[in-house]
Amino acid sequence: MSKIQVGLIGATGYGGGELVRLLEHHPNVRLSALVARGRSDEPIGASHPHLASTAHRINDELPDGLDAVFMALPHGVAAEVAPSVAEKGTVVIDLGPDFRLRDAADYPRWYGFEHPRPDLLALAVYGLPELHHAQLRALRDQPVRIVGSPGCYPTTALLAMAPLARAGLVSDVVVDAKSGVSGAGRDAKPEMMYSEVNESVRAYGVGGHRHVAEMEQEMAIINGRRGDPIDFLPHLVPMTRGILAACHVRPTRSVDQAELDRLYAQAYSGACFVKVVDSPPSTKHVWGSNTCRVYAGWDERTGRVLAIGVLDNLVKGAAGQAVQAFNVVFGLPEESGLEQLPLAP
Amino acid sequence: MSKIQVGLIGATGYGGGELVRLLEHHPNVRLSALVARGRSDEPIGASHPHLASTAHRINDELPDGLDAVFMALPHGVAAEVAPSVAEKGTVVIDLGPDFRLRDAADYPRWYGFEHPRPDLLALAVYGLPELHHAQLRALRDQPVRIVGSPGCYPTTALLAMAPLARAGLVSDVVVDAKSGVSGAGRDAKPEMMYSEVNESVRAYGVGGHRHVAEMEQEMAIINGRRGDPIDFLPHLVPMTRGILAACHVRPTRSVDQAELDRLYAQAYSGACFVKVVDSPPSTKHVWGSNTCRVYAGWDERTGRVLAIGVLDNLVKGAAGQAVQAFNVVFGLPEESGLEQLPLAP
Amino acid sequence: MSKIQVGLIGATGYGGGELVRLLEHHPNVRLSALVARGRSDEPIGASHPHLASTAHRINDELPDGLDAVFMALPHGVAAEVAPSVAEKGTVVIDLGPDFRLRDAADYPRWYGFEHPRPDLLALAVYGLPELHHAQLRALRDQPVRIVGSPGCYPTTALLAMAPLARAGLVSDVVVDAKSGVSGAGRDAKPEMMYSEVNESVRAYGVGGHRHVAEMEQEMAIINGRRGDPIDFLPHLVPMTRGILAACHVRPTRSVDQAELDRLYAQAYSGACFVKVVDSPPSTKHVWGSNTCRVYAGWDERTGRVLAIGVLDNLVKGAAGQAVQAFNVVFGLPEESGLEQLPLAP
Amino acid sequence: MSKIQVGLIGATGYGGGELVRLLEHHPNVRLSALVARGRSDEPIGASHPHLASTAHRINDELPDGLDAVFMALPHGVAAEVAPSVAEKGTVVIDLGPDFRLRDAADYPRWYGFEHPRPDLLALAVYGLPELHHAQLRALRDQPVRIVGSPGCYPTTALLAMAPLARAGLVSDVVVDAKSGVSGAGRDAKPEMMYSEVNESVRAYGVGGHRHVAEMEQEMAIINGRRGDPIDFLPHLVPMTRGILAACHVRPTRSVDQAELDRLYAQAYSGACFVKVVDSPPSTKHVWGSNTCRVYAGWDERTGRVLAIGVLDNLVKGAAGQAVQAFNVVFGLPEESGLEQLPLAP
Repeated sequence: MSKIQVGLIGATGYGGGELVRLLEHHPNVRLSALVARGRSDEPIGASHPHLASTAHRINDELPDGLDAVFMALPHGVAAEVAPSVAEKGTVVIDLGPDFRLRDAADYPRWYGFEHPRPDLLALAVYGLPELHHAQLRALRDQPVRIVGSPGCYPTTALLAMAPLARAGLVSDVVVDAKSGVSGAGRDAKPEMMYSEVNESVRAYGVGGHRHVAEMEQEMAIINGRRGDPIDFLPHLVPMTRGILAACHVRPTRSVDQAELDRLYAQAYSGACFVKVVDSPPSTKHVWGSNTCRVYAGWDERTGRVLAIGVLDNLVKGAAGQAVQAFNVVFGLPEESGLEQLPLAP
Repeated sequence: MSKIQVGLIGATGYGGGELVRLLEHHPNVRLSALVARGRSDEPIGASHPHLASTAHRINDELPDGLDAVFMALPHGVAAEVAPSVAEKGTVVIDLGPDFRLRDAADYPRWYGFEHPRPDLLALAVYGLPELHHAQLRALRDQPVRIVGSPGCYPTTALLAMAPLARAGLVSDVVVDAKSGVSGAGRDAKPEMMYSEVNESVRAYGVGGHRHVAEMEQEMAIINGRRGDPIDFLPHLVPMTRGILAACHVRPTRSVDQAELDRLYAQAYSGACFVKVVDSPPSTKHVWGSNTCRVYAGWDERTGRVLAIGVLDNLVKGAAGQAVQAFNVVFGLPEESGLEQLPLAP
Repeated sequence: MSKIQVGLIGATGYGGGELVRLLEHHPNVRLSALVARGRSDEPIGASHPHLASTAHRINDELPDGLDAVFMALPHGVAAEVAPSVAEKGTVVIDLGPDFRLRDAADYPRWYGFEHPRPDLLALAVYGLPELHHAQLRALRDQPVRIVGSPGCYPTTALLAMAPLARAGLVSDVVVDAKSGVSGAGRDAKPEMMYSEVNESVRAYGVGGHRHVAEMEQEMAIINGRRGDPIDFLPHLVPMTRGILAACHVRPTRSVDQAELDRLYAQAYSGACFVKVVDSPPSTKHVWGSNTCRVYAGWDERTGRVLAIGVLDNLVKGAAGQAVQAFNVVFGLPEESGLEQLPLAP
Repeated sequence: MSKIQVGLIGATGYGGGELVRLLEHHPNVRLSALVARGRSDEPIGASHPHLASTAHRINDELPDGLDAVFMALPHGVAAEVAPSVAEKGTVVIDLGPDFRLRDAADYPRWYGFEHPRPDLLALAVYGLPELHHAQLRALRDQPVRIVGSPGCYPTTALLAMAPLARAGLVSDVVVDAKSGVSGAGRDAKPEMMYSEVNESVRAYGVGGHRHVAEMEQEMAIINGRRGDPIDFLPHLVPMTRGILAACHVRPTRSVDQAELDRLYAQAYSGACFVKVVDSPPSTKHVWGSNTCRVYAGWDERTGRVLAIGVLDNLVKGAAGQAVQAFNVVFGLPEESGLEQLPLAP
């Protein structure tokens, strides 16, 4: 089988670097073009010293003739760039939020821009293979093929709660999440300097972090109806990679641990990248891999279910998940290029 | 004024070290005796190299004639040791849980031991000066004087929610907390090794951490009635010091931000160690100091109040708070020995 | 080609975990047996939660019939265990120091034990493929086949200085090295607790760290003569993985940068795992990979050469290097199973 | 005694923040004016949230009538600003390099600017009280009073080696130093982002870091003659505060440990902020305090002396040292305002 010709726009950020790391050894991919604004034949080592041995070069322009293009761009940019690429028949996998939301009104509300192509929002697929496998599979036969790859927080929370939601058990949700700082991207910001972040934890996005829009959209799809607003609070913790989402859920009816165990086992029996565990997982258990670990516990004392998900925000929360969706779209084994085990310690 | 003669049992742990650091420069204290099991005239630098310049020595036996004794001991030990010390008239400030709970039945339930002196539980005062100032003040005139100094998590959560509780606004509470690892004490445990903790976050105490007993006890006192069980979930984050408690509260009636601002300003107008802030605080803002910062925000979208508290778990969450209570008991200015500003970065 | 049957003794430590991570996806290896003292059919997830998906089990006994056995054991243990394994014809790759030194007198001096089989020390090969490729290659034809896989510090320093040493340029060496804490192993030690290590750096092994014996032995081999004692000082820095060795060398004659560049380019032109770089490398550039980056700079002001090496102490400094030597011994491509790119950030 | 009126220019950086922390509780100081470019009555909490309780405000202009002014400014700026302040009779304590070097030619060489007032360089005193106590003491009687407060690296290395240098023992010096990142200042730089610094160590300033000029100047003063160039190599390690300098010295004649012990004990018998220790110190032993710990060991194997110094780069390496020099200049007890013990863990 000839290799799939792949391009990447936004090669110099953290998401771009992870895509190169993963795609470089993908057995079905030829990484043909790396693009970043203003670069002209720049060696990849200039922006990603750890990848210098790949000998890739970064340029300003995307060549024609690619089968698929990954985009790792600031919000609002892919919405401008992706349509023309997709309309040539190229599969677009956008790691940003520009094609995740179905309701165009969510863009000015949560992201501060009017979406230029609301018509494409209905065609794009939310690229969480554990929830939308069939749609991703079917995408290849569509004329315009765009995957909106999920955000890191929604991925974690949705995978943690989906089995509950499918059973109609979810109400009154508090999602209290903790993230490493690489999720904030690579731009130099004073509040992301080592000396500011180290030995400190803080909440942010109080009163409504953007990612809540995705969470509520997808929970509504699973539930079959719009639920109550989700109380979502993210925190920044002093580590580079990793997200943990603790989902405090009041079930709509009485449950017990055995039922939870059954629901989760069923939900993820065929999932290659979700592992159900029976004690609270650490983010370190999945570091560097595309795995999400989920835990669900019934607390008799409080009458709540605690659902916890952990993943590596740059892999299953970004680049790895995008490759996973790409694999599904192209009919490849879902694990292709994603077999790396986690690294610890 | 002659100095107050003070002793310390449990001098070699982290809490003990912080007590020495603070008491060494307390203007009204003479730190007369440091005690730890099995030590005989051991220089303090052997267990606390950073305190070597104080030239204290650690011994096995507590001398007589002390005005006050701080105890930083594993749970169950102070319950055995404190009564005889207190019955000689010495003020006991216990940093452990042995005199925090009023219901003796809570000890076997949460700590796994039968309390040997349930009679003293009614006499002991919960040493959170912001809630029990009058009782602490009155303690000096009692024949038996024991302060049960609060746990680090309850201090954070109670200071964050007390103004809401006083106004009868609290129901349906989720306390999602994040702590640095020094709170786990100084014993060498495999899961607290640097390589295990670094670059990782995890929940623990799932299904009921011991500290929830204190939280519920004190919330009931403020509320005037026993409320619903608190859903309390602590996390370990890769830092040494600091606790952040995010308290997700569904208010019993409609509120707005202006009311919250008023409630919090009133509650803490006279508090020297609680600072109300108008944006989510970082644990780094209070590092090394006895200050707790609290934030309360009304989220119109979800109809919840988010109350956040941050403090240094070894200072306001342990040694500093114990000194603060000591100051109140002895009629000293509440800030004595606790004037140090936070250190950042 | 049928797979090489491989066993691992010492599966529960950090070196053992990395070996499993690497061997699991090695195309020519079947990891047939994991051994650790006192384990009986224990799932690997009990000691290495991140590797739970491999479904390996750990047992107490090594089965017969293996082609190769890796040993990741405390010093003195492999010296007892390896001979009987090797004498059955199995290739032994020992990650510890027991077969690194040629002079049996070095064992009581540096490691505090008499070597039980000094006869084997002459037969064992020091498993640094960049220095001993031919010997490793020839090992397969020997009756007793033992590889003493190098220590993490010597690997870093030797790769950094070998081109200088080959040119006869080395004298008066100071090796000032910095290591992450995973190199200290997995046992719970008070001084390796997170709270002790975080925000701190310290030297250790003052007056002679054991690894200096290897460094001097190998430098003497390259030089063709015993040189002056090496002033080697290791430091512990607050990170999990990574070693940097700064080698301050006074050259035996005048050199310039162009000559250094030429020497290093020649020395490593065919080396798949050593990359010569033209600015000081970070340990992060090689995190999780088997690569060592080396830098050599001429300082006209001081008349010294600064040679710097960086590597991941658990990969090129331990498990990866052992796999690399295994590949050479078995005539496999040197990169087999070691293709993973570094991870950053 | 009336308080000394003190101003601070450069209040918003890390050095400025530490000065406020220390001066706020200095018994003889009234911190009258905080200055930073472009600020107009800005609350200090805007730049230093941890200091919000001090209620200071920051302004653009320095008022007249101050007794002393601390300057924490980028190099080249104090050289412009200080002369006019000093010529009004105000004592200037400059934390930057602009008045540290006696040879005006060193400024274009090491800092890239021509010094505008070389005449003042001869009058300024290098503010390391352990070396220049008498000069600092005498400064108050001078018409122009400028203290060039030492750099963090030179302070560490000089205190570590001064006893050797006084005894004429120093030759062939390698200073291999490791620093936390706060020393790089507060400006947002890509390479100082958390994700870049964490889990990494690297050398920098290869071929000549600016601080070597100070080291060589002061070593020459102690020695009474210009010695060989110092081979100085700094490293960045993933921590916020702390410097360790390992000074590898080949003594000019044979020594032994007893002589070293005697030299160091004599040198620092009266020093309130230098503690000689008999095992290698950790930076954590001095965290947050003005103490420098020094260690000297004779290595018989290599014939070298290893002298190690550790300090907190923001305290004894910057703000604390400046306050200490201020105390000496104003005839106050040297410890005033600097009594804080180190914080650990």
